[in-house]
Amino acid sequence: MHPEPTPNATNVHELSTPAVLVDIDTLEHNLSTMAAVLPGALLRPHVKAHKSTALAEMQRRHGHRHFTCATVREMVGMARAGLGDDLLLANEVVDADRLRELATLQDDAMITVAVDSDATVDAAARAGIHHVLIDVNIGLPRCGCAPHDAARLAQRARDRGMAVRGVMGYEGHLMVSNDRNTQRRDTLAAMDVLRSAASEVGGEIVSAGGTGNHDVHAANRAHTGVTEVQAGSYALMDTYYSTLGLPFRQAISILGTVISTQEKWAVADVGLKSLGMDHGNPSIAGHKVWFCSDEHLTFATEKPADDSTRVPQPAVGSRIRVIPAHVDPTMSMHDSFYLVRGDQVLDRLPIDLRGW
Amino acid sequence: MHPEPTPNATNVHELSTPAVLVDIDTLEHNLSTMAAVLPGALLRPHVKAHKSTALAEMQRRHGHRHFTCATVREMVGMARAGLGDDLLLANEVVDADRLRELATLQDDAMITVAVDSDATVDAAARAGIHHVLIDVNIGLPRCGCAPHDAARLAQRARDRGMAVRGVMGYEGHLMVSNDRNTQRRDTLAAMDVLRSAASEVGGEIVSAGGTGNHDVHAANRAHTGVTEVQAGSYALMDTYYSTLGLPFRQAISILGTVISTQEKWAVADVGLKSLGMDHGNPSIAGHKVWFCSDEHLTFATEKPADDSTRVPQPAVGSRIRVIPAHVDPTMSMHDSFYLVRGDQVLDRLPIDLRGW
Repeated sequence: MHPEPTPNATNVHELSTPAVLVDIDTLEHNLSTMAAVLPGALLRPHVKAHKSTALAEMQRRHGHRHFTCATVREMVGMARAGLGDDLLLANEVVDADRLRELATLQDDAMITVAVDSDATVDAAARAGIHHVLIDVNIGLPRCGCAPHDAARLAQRARDRGMAVRGVMGYEGHLMVSNDRNTQRRDTLAAMDVLRSAASEVGGEIVSAGGTGNHDVHAANRAHTGVTEVQAGSYALMDTYYSTLGLPFRQAISILGTVISTQEKWAVADVGLKSLGMDHGNPSIAGHKVWFCSDEHLTFATEKPADDSTRVPQPAVGSRIRVIPAHVDPTMSMHDSFYLVRGDQVLDRLPIDLRGW
Repeated sequence: MHPEPTPNATNVHELSTPAVLVDIDTLEHNLSTMAAVLPGALLRPHVKAHKSTALAEMQRRHGHRHFTCATVREMVGMARAGLGDDLLLANEVVDADRLRELATLQDDAMITVAVDSDATVDAAARAGIHHVLIDVNIGLPRCGCAPHDAARLAQRARDRGMAVRGVMGYEGHLMVSNDRNTQRRDTLAAMDVLRSAASEVGGEIVSAGGTGNHDVHAANRAHTGVTEVQAGSYALMDTYYSTLGLPFRQAISILGTVISTQEKWAVADVGLKSLGMDHGNPSIAGHKVWFCSDEHLTFATEKPADDSTRVPQPAVGSRIRVIPAHVDPTMSMHDSFYLVRGDQVLDRLPIDLRGW
């Protein structure tokens, strides 16, 4: 799972496929753009979007030293990589073994665990976790306690000897919207709920948001009281978020090889085992994706608008770049990615936070 | 990636989640049912469906010594595990490094590679591959040469010093059908095309089919000339194939833990990073799945038909079994699976053929 110190390949055409490519200049654009909008601790980058300590290290170089994780594996990996200044597990865990493993990291890392029920408070306390955050449901039918229960849970956590650092809420249902005014209005309404819970819970953290509404949060901090945004997708992007007109660009693609070509279609070796499919088919510039199978992607060249000339399918052996519809599960299917500039391969880096 | 020789857990309730469970009795039922319909070399089990040499070894114990693979990684892993009696790479490859790695296995394993174009014939020849099969397109818009081109490609392969063992064709578009009479008719029509190509190509192998129409192939071998069926999903099954009324039962489930519960829904830790999502949402017996997120599954108890009683959501900490909609990509997301009998854990086995 460790990168080769010097990759043999110096050009993407020499890579075996499928292979994850991350364009370093686009990545740097995305990281610096976000760091300008939400500098330092105002952004708590979510590592679930890339599952790579190497990429998190780049985010730290842009000034963000606090990170969000979705799994214990991500927390442990980040701490062991020296990225444990302030790690938030923004997810509920009742697994006693995993919580105990987390607790052992607390000498060297700042570990905070989200809780939303008596059971999760008690599990954290039993495992010796020192810091928790109250996860408040602000509209997405997923985790988070009822807002009116937040203060009681905080008291229960304090009674069990844990420090309560504040609240988090994730308005995931508001991340992607056709109407940004509606998105702004609904985000602010959700933050009213979170702010009210925060005032009852106490603590210094009010954590919320994501890539899709990071700018709403940046512009309304004084009103909402949100102290940090949990964005992840902004670094690499995908076609799902690209519809929003955000200032981030497509940094990730999956390099494929054309392995079969017919008159009307071509087939590449980027199948659905190498692509997160929950947001639908991926995209290929200048081509129409027909469907994905386990190990295959069937696609065709797009006809020009005037339909005047027959455009041949790409030849067997040629390379294509496939843009995933959802970056998070795509990264979790690969064990490494290549940093590239155009067709030049600069480095191979591990996706080392996979699994649970 | 190697299994713990003796798992600490002896009951599924002690496992960390998400975890892949395979019920050994259901698996044995599926393997023995298929071995009765297509014994020995009549079945060439497709390892892409499970990516586990341990599971392939069980299939060999049921009499199948020839296997189908979709990737070079699968071929290499199978050969190194001593399962290389007769391995077919039922996929096109032009990667010179990977083909050379395959060629090095030929002293100890029988390696056959599918080809469907001049480029793939030439790549196999250059790498020193000894045996090929002509992949013929029989209706699915994916790989396979035009049927009329099969004989020419076979001659090209022989001219380059390779033995041509026969033909394969994959009628993937006919695997799942609401009308089994139509499925049978269309399968036989596709086999007419394949048989015609086979007679021109020569060789002893005519390889086709899958779980969804394995019985059509078994009943019509004398007519079609098909010598082997490439079924994979039958061993573990999924909800996609379960609609067909096949004699195979659901052997795989993903064990999850309920981490959050509200009045109207519950949340488990079996998210879309642990489930192949291209066939849609998974299922949970007695519950309705609302949606999957990266690390979460939101679901609810089903109301009884008479709606007379409110059924509470499962408690935090309770376990659920999630049935994936598509088994192949689900297995490829996990590094191991547990063989279980009911709630008893018998063994932990590696999913060791992942990647490319």
